[in-house]
Amino acid sequence: MTSPRNAVGGDHFRSVAIVGVGLIGGSIGLAAKRRGLDGQVIGIGRNEDRLRRAIELGAIDRMTTELREGVSEADLVIVCTPVESIATFVRQTLQHTKPTTLVTDAGSTKETIVRLVEGQRQEGQAVFVGSHPLAGSEKTSVEYAAADLFAGRTVVVTPTDHSPPADVERLLRFWESLGSKCLTMSPAEHDQAVAATSHLPHVIAALVAASTPTESLPLVATGWLDTTRIAAGDVELWRQILAQNRGSVLKRLREFAKVLNSFTDALDGHDEEAVSRLLAAGKQQRDALAD
Amino acid sequence: MTSPRNAVGGDHFRSVAIVGVGLIGGSIGLAAKRRGLDGQVIGIGRNEDRLRRAIELGAIDRMTTELREGVSEADLVIVCTPVESIATFVRQTLQHTKPTTLVTDAGSTKETIVRLVEGQRQEGQAVFVGSHPLAGSEKTSVEYAAADLFAGRTVVVTPTDHSPPADVERLLRFWESLGSKCLTMSPAEHDQAVAATSHLPHVIAALVAASTPTESLPLVATGWLDTTRIAAGDVELWRQILAQNRGSVLKRLREFAKVLNSFTDALDGHDEEAVSRLLAAGKQQRDALAD
Repeated sequence: MTSPRNAVGGDHFRSVAIVGVGLIGGSIGLAAKRRGLDGQVIGIGRNEDRLRRAIELGAIDRMTTELREGVSEADLVIVCTPVESIATFVRQTLQHTKPTTLVTDAGSTKETIVRLVEGQRQEGQAVFVGSHPLAGSEKTSVEYAAADLFAGRTVVVTPTDHSPPADVERLLRFWESLGSKCLTMSPAEHDQAVAATSHLPHVIAALVAASTPTESLPLVATGWLDTTRIAAGDVELWRQILAQNRGSVLKRLREFAKVLNSFTDALDGHDEEAVSRLLAAGKQQRDALAD
Repeated sequence: MTSPRNAVGGDHFRSVAIVGVGLIGGSIGLAAKRRGLDGQVIGIGRNEDRLRRAIELGAIDRMTTELREGVSEADLVIVCTPVESIATFVRQTLQHTKPTTLVTDAGSTKETIVRLVEGQRQEGQAVFVGSHPLAGSEKTSVEYAAADLFAGRTVVVTPTDHSPPADVERLLRFWESLGSKCLTMSPAEHDQAVAATSHLPHVIAALVAASTPTESLPLVATGWLDTTRIAAGDVELWRQILAQNRGSVLKRLREFAKVLNSFTDALDGHDEEAVSRLLAAGKQQRDALAD
C-alpha cells in the first residue's frame, strides 16, 4: 500500500532502528518522522535516561537497550555509534535482522568498517552498505539533534562489489528523502577525500588552538574563532576517526607540512611573490565554494 | 559647551577625518555618527566614486581627495589604509594638522608603523598613537561597513614613551564611545600577540584551502568551511601585514611546524595517548573562549 505519508525511503522502510541516538542518530529520527516515515523509529542505546530524552524530543518512538530486540523487526538499521564500535554493532545486527533488512552506518570513516563487516558477513544475512552524512557539529548530544540537519547536505554512500545495486539504490533514496544530496564512491576513495576535507582541518584547528600562547588569547577575534571552531569537537570521537584513517591522514599531514615549509621559506626569504602566490591559491580555492 | 549628542570621544572630537574609507574607515564613520558625534566626518581617498558611495551610505559627511584639505581642521585623524602606506599617510598628516589634533590608525600591525612615525615626528607636530580594532572580515569595501562593527570588539591601543597620557586617554575614550573594549600594550607586544591570534591563523587557513586536492572538494563540509573562511581575505592586504610582522609570524610558523611534527609522529607511532593529549589541549583552549 502506498500513501503520501509513506515517502521516506520510497515505501521500503516502515520500521527504522537507530543504534546510538546522539546528534546524528537523533537527527535521522527527527528527519525521517518530519519527512513522513509511515512507521516507527526505534532507538537503541545503553543509557536509558538518554533514550527517554530522545523520546521526549520526538527523535525516536520506542527505545530499548537490547540490540537484538531493537533490530529484529526493522527494515532499516543505521548504526550511529563512534567509529571504532560500528563494525561490531553492524556484525551483531546482521545476526538478528531479517535477510531483507538493509543495514548502514553514519561513520566518518569507511574503509576499515566496510572491510571488517564484509570480511565476516555470512551468506543469507542482511546487506550492509556504508554511509557518511557530511553533517554534524562539535556538539554530539541528542539535545542538538535537528530535523533539518541533513537538508542540502552531502551524504556519501560507499558500495563495494558485494553491494547489490538495488540495495544501494534503496539507501540513496532513503538519504535523499531526508533532504540530502548523495555521492557514491568506494570506501577507500571516501577515506582519502575526507582526510583532506575533514580530518586534516580538524587536526590543524586543534593545533592552532593548542599552540596559541595563553597570554595572547585576549587578542583573539573572529579569524581565530572561525579557524579553530572544530577544535571543540569530542576528543575521543576524533581520536578514533584519526586512528581509523591513519594512512590517509598521515599523507595529508605530511603534504601540509611541506606547504607550510614552503610558505615559511618564502616569508623568511622576503619572496613576496611566492607569499602572494600561496595566499592567492588558498583564496581561489576558498572563493570557489559557497560560504 | 556639553550636550548629550556630543558624547563621541568625550567632547574632544568635533571633526573626524578618515583616510581610506573602506570597511574599517566606513564603519568608524557610521559608528561615530550613530553614537552621537556632534560634528562632521570627512572622508579622504583617491577614488571619487568610492567616496561618493561612502557619502550615500552615510559613512562620511564630506569628501576630498586632498589629504591636506581633509586633515587641516580635523580634531581626530584615523588612517585606515593598507598597513604599508599607513606610516607615510600619518607623516603627511602630521605636516598639515593643528598641533592639538590626535592622529591614529587602524592597522593590523603596529611596531613598524609606530617606529617609522615616531622616528620622523617633529617637535610641535600633533601626537600619533597607534590603534588596532580587532574587527573586520574578509570583505574590504565600504559596502560592508556597519555602525556596529566595533560593538563589543576589542581595540588595542599601543602607546609608547612618547605618548602623552592625556592623548592616550582621549583615544581610548573615542574607541569606547564606538562600543569597543580597549586594551593597551606596547607595539611590540601587540605584534607578537596578533602573530599568534590572527596572522598565523590566516596563513594556516590559506594553506589548508590551497593544499586540498581539487578532486576532494565535493566532500567539503562545515569544518573545512569554518577552518578556511579567512583565506578569502584580500591577498595584497595580507601580504603587507605578514611582511610588516615578519619576525613574529616566522616565530609562530616555526612553533606551529614543531607541534604539527609532534602530532604527526604521535599518529604515525600509534601513540593514542599523545594524539588525545594534543587534541584535548586544542579543545580546552577553544572551549575557554566564547563562540
